[in-house]
Amino acid sequence: RVRKMLLELPASDVALLLESSPAKTRQELWQLLDADFHGDVLEELSEDVRNGIISKMVPSSVVDALEDMDTDDLAETLSTLPEDVLQSILASMDAQDRVRAEKALSYGEDTAGFIMNTDTITLRADVSVDVVLRYLRLKAELPENTDTLYVVNRQDLLLGTVSVSRLLTSHPDVNVHEIMDDEPEALNVDMAESDVAKMFERYNWLSAPVIDEENKLVGRITIDDVVDIIREDAEHSMMSMAGLDDEEDTFAPVGQSTKRRSVWLGVNLITALLAAAVSDLFETTLSQLAVLAILNTIVPSMGGVAGNQTLTLVIRGMALGHVSTSNSLWLVRKELAIGFLNGLIWSILIASVIALWKQDFVLGGVIAFAMMMNMIAAGLSGATLPIIMKKLKIDPALAGSVILTTITDVVGIFAFLGTATVFLI
Amino acid sequence: RVRKMLLELPASDVALLLESSPAKTRQELWQLLDADFHGDVLEELSEDVRNGIISKMVPSSVVDALEDMDTDDLAETLSTLPEDVLQSILASMDAQDRVRAEKALSYGEDTAGFIMNTDTITLRADVSVDVVLRYLRLKAELPENTDTLYVVNRQDLLLGTVSVSRLLTSHPDVNVHEIMDDEPEALNVDMAESDVAKMFERYNWLSAPVIDEENKLVGRITIDDVVDIIREDAEHSMMSMAGLDDEEDTFAPVGQSTKRRSVWLGVNLITALLAAAVSDLFETTLSQLAVLAILNTIVPSMGGVAGNQTLTLVIRGMALGHVSTSNSLWLVRKELAIGFLNGLIWSILIASVIALWKQDFVLGGVIAFAMMMNMIAAGLSGATLPIIMKKLKIDPALAGSVILTTITDVVGIFAFLGTATVFLI
Ligand SMILES: [Mg+2]
Ligand SMILES: [Mg+2]
Ligand SMILES: [Mg+2]
Ligand SMILES: [Mg+2]
Ligand SMILES: [Mg+2]
Ligand SMILES: [Mg+2]
Ligand SMILES: [Mg+2]
Ligand SMILES: [Mg+2]
Ligand SMILES: [Mg+2]
Ligand SMILES: [Mg+2]
Ligand SMILES: [Mg+2]
Ligand SMILES: [Mg+2]
Ligand SMILES: [Mg+2]
Repeated sequence: RVRKMLLELPASDVALLLESSPAKTRQELWQLLDADFHGDVLEELSEDVRNGIISKMVPSSVVDALEDMDTDDLAETLSTLPEDVLQSILASMDAQDRVRAEKALSYGEDTAGFIMNTDTITLRADVSVDVVLRYLRLKAELPENTDTLYVVNRQDLLLGTVSVSRLLTSHPDVNVHEIMDDEPEALNVDMAESDVAKMFERYNWLSAPVIDEENKLVGRITIDDVVDIIREDAEHSMMSMAGLDDEEDTFAPVGQSTKRRSVWLGVNLITALLAAAVSDLFETTLSQLAVLAILNTIVPSMGGVAGNQTLTLVIRGMALGHVSTSNSLWLVRKELAIGFLNGLIWSILIASVIALWKQDFVLGGVIAFAMMMNMIAAGLSGATLPIIMKKLKIDPALAGSVILTTITDVVGIFAFLGTATVFLI
Repeated sequence: RVRKMLLELPASDVALLLESSPAKTRQELWQLLDADFHGDVLEELSEDVRNGIISKMVPSSVVDALEDMDTDDLAETLSTLPEDVLQSILASMDAQDRVRAEKALSYGEDTAGFIMNTDTITLRADVSVDVVLRYLRLKAELPENTDTLYVVNRQDLLLGTVSVSRLLTSHPDVNVHEIMDDEPEALNVDMAESDVAKMFERYNWLSAPVIDEENKLVGRITIDDVVDIIREDAEHSMMSMAGLDDEEDTFAPVGQSTKRRSVWLGVNLITALLAAAVSDLFETTLSQLAVLAILNTIVPSMGGVAGNQTLTLVIRGMALGHVSTSNSLWLVRKELAIGFLNGLIWSILIASVIALWKQDFVLGGVIAFAMMMNMIAAGLSGATLPIIMKKLKIDPALAGSVILTTITDVVGIFAFLGTATVFLI
């Protein structure tokens, strides 16, 4: 019964079902599927889930599943496999399939070449619309998401593009070169996929031609794959900020998940010990005034939150292409000003609360000063860290927030306990 | 010179330039633009930036700019305006424009009706492909991103769809009803936009027809607008987790940004004071052992990070539609098991570090116990909070992480200082 239901679902729905199941159920469901259907489903799965399934298949069944895949899906599937699995799959392929696989893998991961498809329809410039229409009717079916046909010469140089709508609305006697866009926007095969996604998003494209260094047409990229990249890029920041891999499988086994997350917890333990070591410098102060121990977490916590707001905003601004060298100085100044204003607001507030709660005006003044210092440190480091890290080619979403909170913890504790030592002891 | 350069850029590039400029420069650039071009640029701007510009325009110029907008962009632009600005713009419109604007605004925000366009091309089922082709040639131009034509009867009921590729590859003598897909997937006008986006993403659509309760065709949704929704939804979680509005303008004036972020900082101050109040209960203990004050932040910090990992993963799983009632119990159990395993790993590690650093094995045991408790609390609350909040229709991305860290702070401090009071004093 389950099997019958499963066989009637489209590949994307089967993929969703697999993604939503624990690893064990996933294997059982996979066994129920028709082998013909394996390729279509594999295409739609996320990296971790797909690799989990492939690692349990025999290489020859994997080869069968890969046979009908588009080049972009083939490249994606093969590139994320562990090296030994990849080698055993390549070894099971016949010569022709292996050439295709190696070609698909030859472009750098996350480039236009890697995500393109080779199923372009090409035309010559000197034929009439009527001839084109008859040619298309002979083909009987167009590749998925074909909205544009490409005009090339004998050397495969891209001369222009003709949109399918243009073709439909043009008179049959007109020649292709009269209706083609002869300054087509083409993407270079080496372009980074996130830049490709930005172009699609900005210009509302459905597809775009890909050319090599010699301006020869080598393939096309379609919006459905760009949508996946946009989703992944946007998720990447969010997941990285929590120290998670963006491909992390929600339903992975406990051991695997624990192992993956432990790196981040380990880093955090080190920073927490660092903050403790800073407090340790003020042991005498703390032993004389227990109230300092009670209030010691407030300033670091506020600095961490304010700094993270700035950091998140700048990371997003960089992802959208809004933050560049020309305006980053303006942005740093702005966030510094916000830090100052925040410092003013929250130090007055916290000073009042503490003065009332602990009946101690000097203590209120001490915590207010520490708050001011830490808010400024938060604004400054929240804005400059991602800009500096990007220059150093470190991913700010991954490491930014640990470094930031280490700064705000250290500054907050030093400012609070240090000032307290001077004025209260 | 700037003006000349500006006039040659496509609308999306002008929009990007405006988004990347401080508010003052933005106004100056806007003045340089041709009024004809205003509508196209407004469409591409994000909410905050667009509203900032519109609020400085005279209502009649806004009306001119809105005139050529597609219904979806019109709805989006008008819906985010402050009520008084909206009213003065509607008042400046002539009757016909006002009817169109009110119609566009009549669908609930963030529904299919709100993001659809009314520029569908409809056909009758009994005409031949040849007739259709001649009809399209008469139109001379098709609406942007037309990949599918809709077959309707006299009552506008949607009978089927014909893809443009199918039209191109079919023989001219064939009738529309022979080549149409007569079980088309149509979206209901009331469907939530994030569900619309999920459908597009899952089934790789370029466009989809929208029908009302009576199955009448009312419009179509195109992928370019869905891409914006996917981007916004993915960003929403990330921005909300830092307490930011997802439309927040990176280059907004200092005062406006400070005001927006202060709500979140205020909430955090309250939770930080709550944690301090918990520590305050153990004042006598803290005054007797300053080392407890030094180590008091480690356990809450580790719990916060571990809990946030679980929370982020579950929130993403819910956004992708992977987490549902059928598997949420499995997921909670899994995260609880990870919490237990994390507790084991990090309590052994922290106990060893503290025993070595502070030469105190009982202290090591106390912090290990607290770590164990807090890791379990983190796993449990990280997994259950978003599920419960979703049931209560509270956005887990917005409030989840504050509630979570409050729990891990309170549990961590209670467990550490409480156990210390029993065993060390
Ligand atoms: Mg395929
Ligand atoms: Mg495919
Ligand atoms: Mg990729
Ligand atoms: Mg767009
Ligand atoms: Mg593809
Ligand atoms: Mg794909
Ligand atoms: Mg990845
Ligand atoms: Mg438009
Ligand atoms: Mg919206
Ligand atoms: Mg898809
Ligand atoms: Mg639109
Ligand atoms: Mg739009
Ligand atoms: Mg919004």
